Amino acid sequence: MLVGSIEAGGTKFVCAVGDDNYNIVDSKYFITEKPSITLKKVIDYFKNFKIEALGIASFGPLELRQDHAKYGYITTSPKLDWRDTDLYGILKAGLEVPIYLTTDVNGSTYGEYIMSRMTGEKINSLAYYTIGTGVGAGIINNGQFIGDLGHPEMGHVNVKRHPKDMAFAGTCPYHGDCLEGLVSGPTFEARLGKRGETVPQTNFVWDIMAYYVAQALIQTTLMFRPGKIVLGGGVMNGEFLKKIKQQFVKLLNGYVSTPAIDNYIVMPLIKHNGSATIGDFALALTKVAI
Amino acid sequence: MLVGSIEAGGTKFVCAVGDDNYNIVDSKYFITEKPSITLKKVIDYFKNFKIEALGIASFGPLELRQDHAKYGYITTSPKLDWRDTDLYGILKAGLEVPIYLTTDVNGSTYGEYIMSRMTGEKINSLAYYTIGTGVGAGIINNGQFIGDLGHPEMGHVNVKRHPKDMAFAGTCPYHGDCLEGLVSGPTFEARLGKRGETVPQTNFVWDIMAYYVAQALIQTTLMFRPGKIVLGGGVMNGEFLKKIKQQFVKLLNGYVSTPAIDNYIVMPLIKHNGSATIGDFALALTKVAI
Repeated sequence: MLVGSIEAGGTKFVCAVGDDNYNIVDSKYFITEKPSITLKKVIDYFKNFKIEALGIASFGPLELRQDHAKYGYITTSPKLDWRDTDLYGILKAGLEVPIYLTTDVNGSTYGEYIMSRMTGEKINSLAYYTIGTGVGAGIINNGQFIGDLGHPEMGHVNVKRHPKDMAFAGTCPYHGDCLEGLVSGPTFEARLGKRGETVPQTNFVWDIMAYYVAQALIQTTLMFRPGKIVLGGGVMNGEFLKKIKQQFVKLLNGYVSTPAIDNYIVMPLIKHNGSATIGDFALALTKVAI
Repeated sequence: MLVGSIEAGGTKFVCAVGDDNYNIVDSKYFITEKPSITLKKVIDYFKNFKIEALGIASFGPLELRQDHAKYGYITTSPKLDWRDTDLYGILKAGLEVPIYLTTDVNGSTYGEYIMSRMTGEKINSLAYYTIGTGVGAGIINNGQFIGDLGHPEMGHVNVKRHPKDMAFAGTCPYHGDCLEGLVSGPTFEARLGKRGETVPQTNFVWDIMAYYVAQALIQTTLMFRPGKIVLGGGVMNGEFLKKIKQQFVKLLNGYVSTPAIDNYIVMPLIKHNGSATIGDFALALTKVAI
């Protein structure tokens, strides 16, 4: 049996076909042009395979309330061509298979959750943060996505400011110094005038950012007590992960127990940004009666 | 059919017997003495009624992992007499009925959730904060309590400090200036040298506290998108609620949609601190095959 995955992003649509063991059979990407062009290419691509269902992890904002008239639309996206686009409806009409649609970060979250369990980790709950151009998060609690009226937007929480970072106003157009405004990729340019890739780990800005990320992970820990927290996205790296874990342990101060820190706060199990594709396959499979 | 409720607190055990419409048939409280004394009185009380199940909302910390050898114990409580007490086991042996045990704040959370739905509110998710001697929270997400490895401890999250409150170190013995350390009842004495009841609403400390509580509610909103947030506990009052709502709207800055603010951030529907009793009845009823 074959299922499809679309990782729908602002710059490209990554399409993949997989079997029911999550092996990638074929994949191809298409540059994100106008919806009418890109979605036609995507539909034509999947028509080459006999997929039984499709999982989509998409940029947004998405309307995900099943009972809403605009269920499955990309709504107020800053990508103007894609505003008010019936992503679900167009793909459903074009491919005529069951579709599981969720946010980009939820796709990655589910991929990491499924793979963690397949590799023998006994977890029922997992949080995934992506720290890149923006900051987003997804949460699985007892096997289900969190979020009643919408998906979580945990990138925009407030955190306690670092004493050596009080003057920085933050980059979030909505909130200034929310988490995203303090640790996303563009903050490197705003703080230091250069790109993050060029900032050495010895620069104290990494410690400041680790302090903020650690606070967000403490919020998540205290609220959900997840079995594991996965950190992905372009800003993450091994040295930064170390600093985050150190700050987390210090700030939590043993208040609640967590799994051993090296198993608890980790980078993705699935390499090469592949978490969302695996997640999409798994979510598509939930739509197929087996 | 009758069910029982115990609201087990550090100063008293409030016991009640209710019918399956949540009407209180009888109630009595017992001062919290040593476990052997208090639990015997509680058992003797309930033996006067033919209860079919019991709901308990208890102080803690509690061991609530069902597969744990010490499931149902009060564990490392600061109340030394109650440390390592098999609350669940003793009551189960004494009363021989099914028991639903949860935290004090979870009991209140469930009571508010059930009553909101019974009065016609179409919500599946609800967050409840108690702001009193301590700060705690419970969350129902799609009808289920949140928390895999334990119950939420959202009273201890970090928040962005108010510019006019930077010097206050906070009162939390674990974290200093976490939420509880900044807004719980004892912070009035620590900041102003007098009890909260005597501090007029015109004192700016209420605005500072509202700023912190509002941030916690934003965290909850962004993480869970609950249908409603209920604020209970001894520190709450109508004027404080107003300030919290104002700060919440200002800080969220329209980033995500919520229900109308006056329906979204509210004080308990169930009066006279009765939320936990109703919640216990409802949780007890889940243990009875109807």
